[in-house]
Amino acid sequence: MGLKVYGAAMSTCTARVLTALIEKEAEYELVPVNLAVGEHKQPAYLAKHPFGQIPVLEDDDLTLFESRAIAAYVSYKYKTQGTDLLRIGNLKEAGLVGVWIEVESQQFNPAISALVYQLVIAPAFGRPVDQAIIDTNTEKLGKVLDVYEARLSSNKYLAGDFFSLADLNHLPYTYYLMKTGSASLINERPHVKAWWEDISSRPAFVKVSENMNLGG
Amino acid sequence: MGLKVYGAAMSTCTARVLTALIEKEAEYELVPVNLAVGEHKQPAYLAKHPFGQIPVLEDDDLTLFESRAIAAYVSYKYKTQGTDLLRIGNLKEAGLVGVWIEVESQQFNPAISALVYQLVIAPAFGRPVDQAIIDTNTEKLGKVLDVYEARLSSNKYLAGDFFSLADLNHLPYTYYLMKTGSASLINERPHVKAWWEDISSRPAFVKVSENMNLGG
Ligand SMILES: N[C@@H](CCC(=O)N[C@@H](CS)C(=O)NCC(=O)O)C(=O)O
Ligand SMILES: N[C@@H](CCC(=O)N[C@@H](CS)C(=O)NCC(=O)O)C(=O)O
Repeated sequence: MGLKVYGAAMSTCTARVLTALIEKEAEYELVPVNLAVGEHKQPAYLAKHPFGQIPVLEDDDLTLFESRAIAAYVSYKYKTQGTDLLRIGNLKEAGLVGVWIEVESQQFNPAISALVYQLVIAPAFGRPVDQAIIDTNTEKLGKVLDVYEARLSSNKYLAGDFFSLADLNHLPYTYYLMKTGSASLINERPHVKAWWEDISSRPAFVKVSENMNLGG
Repeated sequence: MGLKVYGAAMSTCTARVLTALIEKEAEYELVPVNLAVGEHKQPAYLAKHPFGQIPVLEDDDLTLFESRAIAAYVSYKYKTQGTDLLRIGNLKEAGLVGVWIEVESQQFNPAISALVYQLVIAPAFGRPVDQAIIDTNTEKLGKVLDVYEARLSSNKYLAGDFFSLADLNHLPYTYYLMKTGSASLINERPHVKAWWEDISSRPAFVKVSENMNLGG
């Protein structure tokens, strides 16, 4: 039986998993979950994901959730095919991939996800927008990107001179940010801009982003 | 050259790394960083950790930061000694450890770290306390712990019937929460309470928690 991803193609967390699957040349099937009717809060779905979120990965009798955990699992399971996303053959490189995966999760994601919610998701669903949240997180994200600018001025990618899961995990939220006026946060920083142009033009993400239509 | 941890013994993120090192029977030296005088924002320290936080791990010429990335690195590097924290010999178990590591990072940590800040850290340093933040995060943490209660009623530990890094990562913040009136969040849920009593009485954490004196 092949891999099944339960999710929605336009959602950032689903897109993270799909991009990893394509980079790893793994076969999968996307099973749409209808958030609009609350399918993710129904018992059948909660049995797969106790927090009632997307995405979920089913691999035979194993059910996994949390997009970053799924992406790492796929990268590890298919370590001998596709892009080497974890560098597990090299303890030092693998350690640095782990550091920058955590930086995305702990430093970058809280700021950018709040910003994309306010700038893209809330307007798309006619929900209220909070300017104070935009301001705070613009400042927070700017500080994180200052660290990235310095890092990327001496390394082509975050963990070193190779593309890894650490870079990949940044793709979905940054893609939506780039559709807004706050794209300047990326474009004003030359090394971050060059990195973004490089990682977002990889065929796997180009394919996934074709279905990322939130905010038009 | 042995491992060096730059941090502070009472800090939650440092305690996470020290607990993993002791579980793995790894030799290390703790180099104190004086947060009170802002040592972590000085150029010498920022060269190790660009976000100016503790902890940092130095392993010969490799410098790592982010406590969860360091704990995973140590668990992987010393995979043949001490407690098996990652279960990398078993793809399915390793996948589930990865899921529950992410649950701690994405669901549990945002709520409990906000709560411990308000209930323990702010009062200890004479900073203002915000009751609205306490209320929101008490509710959030309660919902996360409802999921844990269900999970732990059919599994002794989060990822299965074995102690792993997923459990370990919860120790430091929960330890401080248990010193407050909000300990009831744990104590009211019988399986969560039994799990907490089990994991917090492991010798590695008993040793580390002796130096966790925030909030008296
Ligand atoms: N940390 C989780 C976050 C998952 C998440 O927030 N998913 C969103 C879509 S991007 C969702 O399911 N939202 C619906 C809801 O939470 O009700 C992950 O990375 O998988
Ligand atoms: N996500 C980071 C968080 C590190 C962190 O917030 N460290 C705190 C101590 S627990 C710190 O350095 N605080 C001082 C500051 O941020 O100025 C990790 O897990 O290492």
